[in-house]
Amino acid sequence: IQSKLPDIGTTIFTVMSQLSAENQAINLGQGFPEFNPDEKLIDLVNKAMKEGFNQYPYMPGVAPLREELAKKMAALYGAKYDSLNEITVTNGATEAIMAAIMASVTTGDEVVVVQPCYDSYAPSIRLAGGIPVYTSLTPPNETNPSFSVDWDRIEASITNKTKLLILNFPHNPTGITLEKEDLDRIEQILDRHNILILADEVYEHIVFDKKPFLSLASRPAIAKRAFVISSFGKTYHTTGWKVGYCYAPSELSKEFRKIHQFMVFTVCSPMQYALAEYMKDQSTYSNLSNFYQEKHDLLFNGLSQTKFKPIKSAGTFFLLADYSAMSSKNEFDFVSDLTKQYKVGLIPVSAFYKDPTSTEANNNLVRFCFAKYDDTLKEAIQRIKDI
Amino acid sequence: IQSKLPDIGTTIFTVMSQLSAENQAINLGQGFPEFNPDEKLIDLVNKAMKEGFNQYPYMPGVAPLREELAKKMAALYGAKYDSLNEITVTNGATEAIMAAIMASVTTGDEVVVVQPCYDSYAPSIRLAGGIPVYTSLTPPNETNPSFSVDWDRIEASITNKTKLLILNFPHNPTGITLEKEDLDRIEQILDRHNILILADEVYEHIVFDKKPFLSLASRPAIAKRAFVISSFGKTYHTTGWKVGYCYAPSELSKEFRKIHQFMVFTVCSPMQYALAEYMKDQSTYSNLSNFYQEKHDLLFNGLSQTKFKPIKSAGTFFLLADYSAMSSKNEFDFVSDLTKQYKVGLIPVSAFYKDPTSTEANNNLVRFCFAKYDDTLKEAIQRIKDI
Ligand SMILES: CSCCC(=O)C(=O)O
Ligand SMILES: CSCCC(=O)C(=O)O
Repeated sequence: IQSKLPDIGTTIFTVMSQLSAENQAINLGQGFPEFNPDEKLIDLVNKAMKEGFNQYPYMPGVAPLREELAKKMAALYGAKYDSLNEITVTNGATEAIMAAIMASVTTGDEVVVVQPCYDSYAPSIRLAGGIPVYTSLTPPNETNPSFSVDWDRIEASITNKTKLLILNFPHNPTGITLEKEDLDRIEQILDRHNILILADEVYEHIVFDKKPFLSLASRPAIAKRAFVISSFGKTYHTTGWKVGYCYAPSELSKEFRKIHQFMVFTVCSPMQYALAEYMKDQSTYSNLSNFYQEKHDLLFNGLSQTKFKPIKSAGTFFLLADYSAMSSKNEFDFVSDLTKQYKVGLIPVSAFYKDPTSTEANNNLVRFCFAKYDDTLKEAIQRIKDI
Repeated sequence: IQSKLPDIGTTIFTVMSQLSAENQAINLGQGFPEFNPDEKLIDLVNKAMKEGFNQYPYMPGVAPLREELAKKMAALYGAKYDSLNEITVTNGATEAIMAAIMASVTTGDEVVVVQPCYDSYAPSIRLAGGIPVYTSLTPPNETNPSFSVDWDRIEASITNKTKLLILNFPHNPTGITLEKEDLDRIEQILDRHNILILADEVYEHIVFDKKPFLSLASRPAIAKRAFVISSFGKTYHTTGWKVGYCYAPSELSKEFRKIHQFMVFTVCSPMQYALAEYMKDQSTYSNLSNFYQEKHDLLFNGLSQTKFKPIKSAGTFFLLADYSAMSSKNEFDFVSDLTKQYKVGLIPVSAFYKDPTSTEANNNLVRFCFAKYDDTLKEAIQRIKDI
């Protein structure tokens, strides 16, 4: 058969996890927590199974879960969503991203994506018949030690064929997040252009320096034209359960659900009931930023003692570091050698660009995942400190 | 936004389940078992969660599960699949169907579907840019009391634009299955036409009259050009867990996995590990046909005492019955009235046709699901016996 995605190989996350495993390296590459979910949550899944919640749940997600998701959105971001028609439970954020794109993008539509970015956006756009139009964040420079958003550059990439703009904050891989002024700029862009927004907010509960997260859903003018997507994986240490969700106005949710229905029909039932019960206690996710701030600081401070030059993150469980003081290799070679020689697995940031070999993509930066036990992070720092 | 699937409303299965719930009817409509899965299987999921299998599993499915699936295919059907490159674990058969279609069908390709058929085939084809070409089974008539396959008619609908032929045996909703001669005919069709097969075999372990199921995977000449799809939902009473799988030669699996990766990335981890362990004991699925045969016979005999004229099924947990002796209403109205007045919910067979109002679709037939406790089936028969 003719490949629909001829240039897609195995995803960098799998490649690097395998390389780490083969080399008995500490895997700080692929983004997943080393910790197990709370026993309470596991027990709730077990209870749901024993009580018989094992057959097809309602297609858009079970009512108690959609209701809790509506409450959370109102409580945290002042965003009003009708649980019946505007919230859909999905097989992780990945499914939600594909379904939102499939629902809104038709042949020839342009979709603006901002590099570096997660690797599922562009293939999903192409499978929907759309055309990914790439723009980029501004890389670290003398005046700004971290990546930054250039809204003028993003706006300049919007044409009258643009249907959708994909944004992701807190941002993977750079760890940057949004300020009030950024939301103002997004509102202005929406005023001037007839486009929709896909907001990938899976790291919404990991934001540092005691700042609240500014969800795009908190602005009604944005929310009414957006698919706002998140998931439980990063919040409850359950990346393998694959439960995510999408908030969107009913007109968009209606089309979203048509795709969801035929893509997967529905989502694992006992997990849905358990998560609905578990999320009533907000302390779990409200403590998460502090939990990860300590790990961020541990890794940042540890790397500061090495030849790596770490960059502070404002959110997510990732941080970037510059390795140019120790090597002039390209990022892929550097990461590969590091895994084999020093037994620490990382992700090259250039893997988040359409063309990883381009000059723009190569900033001598690697991504560390710090969703690990302190001892794991310390051991990793130990291993690389004498390079 | 412009709808990609303008004519799609809420699926008949959800509509009828809701109507049953509103009317406190016995729901013999949507196909799901009334029974809980084996406690042993539930305990294995619990164990997997406690042991820490809660983060992203390997994208195509965890190794132990793919290995057990390979063994099963070899043991039951003599079909050799390499667990590493030819088996992918999916979010239920629904995801596998969409992914197989997305992987193989490009804009303008024709896909032959045989009515009556499951409602996800045509929308999945359209989302891939393909054109569903409809043909039909032969309805019950004087010489044959059940539906039958007219292979000449199917072959006649194949053109040089046809990319894929979708087959589903044991067949939902008609309960028919395949004989050796049918597999011969499929081989001949593949000899004469350069097409692929999608085989939806989710009811593979529910086949009556002590006959073995003839999987399309049992014929190498078919298997090498087929996506063979099944799931655990119907076999282990876990329709709500959403774990299915696709067998395909490596060239097809490679493209299938590219779609799967971006559609959902991977499937609920603790369920995968538990199912891998549980399926080592083949007695569960090898007893399933007997288990359902008794229920089939109970319902068939019960309905024979009413004005319904039931049709024997050769497999699945469904059977059809003709109601023309008691009503001349169309199938939707008949089913709706029956739910409200007699408190038994069913599915109109015409819902499985592209145009449910066409003459061809209307045979005064309704579908009963008998995946229910005997007492439930007896009570349902009781409720309708005096119509
Ligand atoms: C789905 S594997 C990738 C996990 C992740 O989000 C990342 O590492 O960036
Ligand atoms: C996914 S809901 C439909 C279940 C089913 O297979 C059927 O009732 O035919």
